[in-house]
Amino acid sequence: MDYGKISIQRHKALGGKLGISLKDELDTTEKLSIYYTPGIGAVSKYVAEHPDEARDYTWLNNSVAVVSDGSAVLGLGNIGPQASLPVMEGKAMIFKYFAGIDAVPIVLDAHSADEIVAAVKAIGPSFGGINLEDIAAPICFEVERRLKRELPIPVFHDDQHGSAIVALAGLINALKVVGKNLNDCRVAVSGAGAGGVAIMKLLRLYAPAVKILAVDSKGIIWPGRGNLNSAKQALIDEGIILAGNGGGLAKALKGADIFIGVSQPTIVSQAMVESMNTRPVILAMANPVPEIMPDIAKAGGAAIVATGRSDFPNQVNNAVAFPGIFRGALDNGVRDITDKHKIAAAEAIAGLIDRPSADKIIPSVFDKKLVETIAKVIS
Amino acid sequence: MDYGKISIQRHKALGGKLGISLKDELDTTEKLSIYYTPGIGAVSKYVAEHPDEARDYTWLNNSVAVVSDGSAVLGLGNIGPQASLPVMEGKAMIFKYFAGIDAVPIVLDAHSADEIVAAVKAIGPSFGGINLEDIAAPICFEVERRLKRELPIPVFHDDQHGSAIVALAGLINALKVVGKNLNDCRVAVSGAGAGGVAIMKLLRLYAPAVKILAVDSKGIIWPGRGNLNSAKQALIDEGIILAGNGGGLAKALKGADIFIGVSQPTIVSQAMVESMNTRPVILAMANPVPEIMPDIAKAGGAAIVATGRSDFPNQVNNAVAFPGIFRGALDNGVRDITDKHKIAAAEAIAGLIDRPSADKIIPSVFDKKLVETIAKVIS
Repeated sequence: MDYGKISIQRHKALGGKLGISLKDELDTTEKLSIYYTPGIGAVSKYVAEHPDEARDYTWLNNSVAVVSDGSAVLGLGNIGPQASLPVMEGKAMIFKYFAGIDAVPIVLDAHSADEIVAAVKAIGPSFGGINLEDIAAPICFEVERRLKRELPIPVFHDDQHGSAIVALAGLINALKVVGKNLNDCRVAVSGAGAGGVAIMKLLRLYAPAVKILAVDSKGIIWPGRGNLNSAKQALIDEGIILAGNGGGLAKALKGADIFIGVSQPTIVSQAMVESMNTRPVILAMANPVPEIMPDIAKAGGAAIVATGRSDFPNQVNNAVAFPGIFRGALDNGVRDITDKHKIAAAEAIAGLIDRPSADKIIPSVFDKKLVETIAKVIS
Repeated sequence: MDYGKISIQRHKALGGKLGISLKDELDTTEKLSIYYTPGIGAVSKYVAEHPDEARDYTWLNNSVAVVSDGSAVLGLGNIGPQASLPVMEGKAMIFKYFAGIDAVPIVLDAHSADEIVAAVKAIGPSFGGINLEDIAAPICFEVERRLKRELPIPVFHDDQHGSAIVALAGLINALKVVGKNLNDCRVAVSGAGAGGVAIMKLLRLYAPAVKILAVDSKGIIWPGRGNLNSAKQALIDEGIILAGNGGGLAKALKGADIFIGVSQPTIVSQAMVESMNTRPVILAMANPVPEIMPDIAKAGGAAIVATGRSDFPNQVNNAVAFPGIFRGALDNGVRDITDKHKIAAAEAIAGLIDRPSADKIIPSVFDKKLVETIAKVIS
């Protein structure tokens, strides 16, 4: 089905996907007096005198800004803030439909870490949480690090941590199916942007002995290559990835137990899968076209294949994680979403599958227990 | 009735007044594919290639940010962004209920004209219009002037222009009732903040021969007083107000045909009204307690009294104007809301009263024709 064409038609027919809803009507003078002047002055005065209770009297208890500068949107790259708005409205829909969270898309005409941080700090008092989205690496790392430190509300870059949480959740169940331990595995990760870096960091935290080789568009990341950005250099400096000594994707996959792709369509061949260790696990998360199509990976001997798509089994998509993460953070007053939270969320997601199988390593976004189960561990 | 107490209780019970609504459900994999990945990429790509059509595919065609730094909130003064949020949510309710506009409260941790302008410019691509609210004078004038120039969407400081439009609308009908022409009148304006300055400017544009004396907390504004802020000095330099030569509120009211208050509760006495010209008109807009209560003004000989309150006749409240102003700007693609628009809006509002009388100079916010009638002239 040509979803692109249908999507364009549908968006034009609707004129956008979001609106504002009211919790009461303004059909009488009395209600105007309660919700606006003169009554509202007393509410603002109360909140000014009891700032810790602001959440109880406003929508801060349930609102999240979905913030992007439009610099790394899906496979489209830097298309700018306005063109990224349809994606952010879609994200806000998912927040509302699956977790009941009131998410507002905020697309920023801001082009440096300083500008993005300044803008988000300025609007900070308007929201109960900040979901950063589609901000290019390596700026995204600095933006998140600074905002987490400087804002008193949860800040979460979904491209990093949502991806990492669902990848780890999928792997936990996949390794049960193939009977391996992550600490004994070698992992080849293709893509060292926001998602790739966060996945590698979380895998290393979860399984300190895991061996990771990272590949970007110029090949395996290693010290001798030069010209590494700060995030890639940190992967080496912090011992998160093996140092390597050159070579490309084919070399990285040879003998690997796991392939994780957050990179480009169809860059992995059947031969590369055939070169992997026995019962290899493939997480090909490039969207909408994965690094390798499932039928080809299977033909190459893959024991388990997961993609980001909804039309194949094993959809490893951020939408499995972020609604529950924010539901928990808002409900439990969690300001800082930590590595422990991320691992707990991955385990909670994995735990929803009673008996993992090759075609069922991760729950569906439609799983009714999903949001509640994740929210419980974000506390 | 103690609206303050009821309002506090009601806000706590509701947990804020706003939510996000969705134009469709996400109940199937197919809808997820249309509204999010993979379909959404085509929409973003289309908007990137056709930026002029962004409004058709997003909520830009119907969304407005209600922006405040919380520096001049009602009679409370500078209570900061978070405490101003209940007021901004109330404003957003009015936008939605009366004009169907999806308004999002954005309260800013920003404390100078530069910071406010930078923040609003950064979030500009997220909204179809900007309603500035409760930003203290004189910063508000610079903020609006710069944003109007630098953003490609309508920017409107309601405390200035909403107040001016409804005051002029009320005066147009009041003067019909008392049989005077504004060009022959002397007007005493109490308050030279955002509302007062904008009212004086609009009156002067509408009736070039009108004589205006302006009074602030230190008395009549005149050159010899010294220490005038830039906005007050401009009122003199641009010939908008009479130069005056000192004195206070009592002197300004003596012989005046019209009193307009956008200042402090109960500062006008019955004796001051008695000192005015025959059949004086009183617009006492301080909220919730007006400059003079209607019964006292009437006892002093006032022919017509209007206030900002909903429990007296003649409610001269911004809520009469701003929903229709933005409805028109959004629907008619008006980027710049001009002085001509403001005068046309005031005339349109006044025109809704077939036969003005002392107790009926301005339509109610509940008038079903109000928004549509104003929207037509914002084109």
